[in-house]
Amino acid sequence: MQKNEHKVTYLKAYQLRSLDDVQRVKDDVSNGDIVIVRFTPLVRKSVDELAKAVEELYKFANALGGDIARLGEDRIIVTPPGVKIYREGGLKY
Amino acid sequence: MQKNEHKVTYLKAYQLRSLDDVQRVKDDVSNGDIVIVRFTPLVRKSVDELAKAVEELYKFANALGGDIARLGEDRIIVTPPGVKIYREGGLKY
Repeated sequence: MQKNEHKVTYLKAYQLRSLDDVQRVKDDVSNGDIVIVRFTPLVRKSVDELAKAVEELYKFANALGGDIARLGEDRIIVTPPGVKIYREGGLKY
Repeated sequence: MQKNEHKVTYLKAYQLRSLDDVQRVKDDVSNGDIVIVRFTPLVRKSVDELAKAVEELYKFANALGGDIARLGEDRIIVTPPGVKIYREGGLKY
């Protein structure tokens, strides 16, 4: 963790449309990026698929040593190790 | 300014209730944290105050060399230098 490490962290926001998109989130977060996914399209498609996707992301974030939290009604934030989500009032905001 | 040895980055989410809260965002981002503010309470209170708050945050982010973008209908993300917001389709997601 040197300050002259010239890696830029990206914060990426996109939609989760299918279980396939879960892999994209994993790849991005594994690369050190922060991802905010909006899961509305998946809710409309299949609640089962959404449940699987969310479970997979929780397992992934925990295994990686990152963090994960819901943001508002229809988003989830997944962070790599080194980025912690500050939960004020359970991060309902 | 540069004390990122072992520094954990926090991603904080909270509400923007008044112009005073803008200072909190500036302090957090100056400390290297990422902030997602939900500005709904301020919209309800005063559109003028919201406009001022948003303008102030844009100026602040640009002056600091960080990044700023809207997230969905009612949130703004502000990042410190070193964290760039990846705009896919204008970050409407």
